Amino acid sequence: MNDHPLDRALALSHSDIQSGLFTGATSPDYWNMVGPFGGTTAALLLQAVMQHPDRLGEPIALTVNYAAAVTEGALQVQAVPVRTNRSTQHWTLTLSQAGEEGRPQPNTTATAVTALRRQTWSTTDLAMPQVPAPADVPGMVAGPKGVAWVGQYDMRPIRGGIPREWNDAGDHSETLIWVRDAQPRTLDFPALAAMSDVFYPRAWLRRARPVPAGTVSITTYFHASAAELAQVGHGHLLGRATGQQFRNGFFDQTAQLWSEAGLLLATSHQIVYYKE
Amino acid sequence: MNDHPLDRALALSHSDIQSGLFTGATSPDYWNMVGPFGGTTAALLLQAVMQHPDRLGEPIALTVNYAAAVTEGALQVQAVPVRTNRSTQHWTLTLSQAGEEGRPQPNTTATAVTALRRQTWSTTDLAMPQVPAPADVPGMVAGPKGVAWVGQYDMRPIRGGIPREWNDAGDHSETLIWVRDAQPRTLDFPALAAMSDVFYPRAWLRRARPVPAGTVSITTYFHASAAELAQVGHGHLLGRATGQQFRNGFFDQTAQLWSEAGLLLATSHQIVYYKE
Repeated sequence: MNDHPLDRALALSHSDIQSGLFTGATSPDYWNMVGPFGGTTAALLLQAVMQHPDRLGEPIALTVNYAAAVTEGALQVQAVPVRTNRSTQHWTLTLSQAGEEGRPQPNTTATAVTALRRQTWSTTDLAMPQVPAPADVPGMVAGPKGVAWVGQYDMRPIRGGIPREWNDAGDHSETLIWVRDAQPRTLDFPALAAMSDVFYPRAWLRRARPVPAGTVSITTYFHASAAELAQVGHGHLLGRATGQQFRNGFFDQTAQLWSEAGLLLATSHQIVYYKE
Repeated sequence: MNDHPLDRALALSHSDIQSGLFTGATSPDYWNMVGPFGGTTAALLLQAVMQHPDRLGEPIALTVNYAAAVTEGALQVQAVPVRTNRSTQHWTLTLSQAGEEGRPQPNTTATAVTALRRQTWSTTDLAMPQVPAPADVPGMVAGPKGVAWVGQYDMRPIRGGIPREWNDAGDHSETLIWVRDAQPRTLDFPALAAMSDVFYPRAWLRRARPVPAGTVSITTYFHASAAELAQVGHGHLLGRATGQQFRNGFFDQTAQLWSEAGLLLATSHQIVYYKE
């Protein structure tokens, strides 16, 4: 049994392997301020797809909608392959917890696409930014007290770390960071889905003001194979996130994750609620 | 009755207003090569949300997954408000057509978020590119024969129009274009959802080679209110699209749409299947 905290957080069991109904629980190791780290919730939904016996190919796209707070304790994930074609497969996913009268109530909805990939012409129009090597970048100063999930990552901000002074004097929304699991673990799709959400809210950086904020919906596209992720092993990923439009209670941010060797592994976008 | 082709394409009826089950049909006016223009399909799904009696607020996010070909003729859209909070509402959507033995079979899945927005601090980190005014940009040369939907738009490419020669000599993936409905129509959310998908596949531009390609999943974030869209009226939008990662059968592209006055109305991302 793997003793990595992410593997514990993503542990799912199922009574009937064909039903696509999995049970699990929230993890204290990845707790955020008032619920689980959203990245872990995304990873958990993708994990159900990875473990489904009817899965075709590997993840291409994942959209997760945070519909309501996930509370501490037991949860269930339903993964349904709605449509399977020759080389692509479309999934709908729901994370539910016991609500009134014990009936499962959906807290999180998601869709995913898996696909068989073939080797084709390939290129990138998003080259990795030139940055110092991970060994030359100091680790992040400890995050806010009581935010357990931050401690699960080795994060080394190159630019756009959490502001040291909340002085309303922010002037950009770009973060560049080296990131990997704090405890060694070979990279896979659920871990990559989680890391796509490690960037703190762009509104905090843009304004140098810690306004209440929470992700409403995140979409991640996966650009590498399981074998390529395994090759990355426990290496650092270079993460980049920037805000786009901040407008009347919602902003969107875009993010990329490269391997240290320069392969763009994932691109991600999210829309985030904010106050004030 | 509105006689605009987009209103005809988005006409939905329902027998029971509470069930969220709507019926409609594909439109020959927005036909693409082997099925409806994907932008119209996205608009149709959002239209069901707009017409649902239980809708809270206005669209914030829409993800549409093209699971299988939509065929000519009748279709149904099911719109379910899975979770309604104080200020946000989460939707799951399915477009189905009669499959084997006449049973409805899902061709397209989607999720949407609507929300009540309040006025807050706002800014943008994606300023509108400086480009010539629409009046100074010639319209697009007619698209490929038999592609009806292209004729429904007034498109004026500033940079990155469809290559005139397929000579494998492409060297970038950016398109800048002025776009609006060819026949006057006041901008609304479904129209904006459709326009987020007017950019032809980035692989064609990047390679100057018209390889087979089709959108697998698109996510659009909406940054303006219904009133702000109405103020745009029939004005041109500046659209920008760029490719990001092209890799082993799938690439992603990112897009933005600004009003001529410079307000970023929508940001959009899609992942696209391609061959060779």
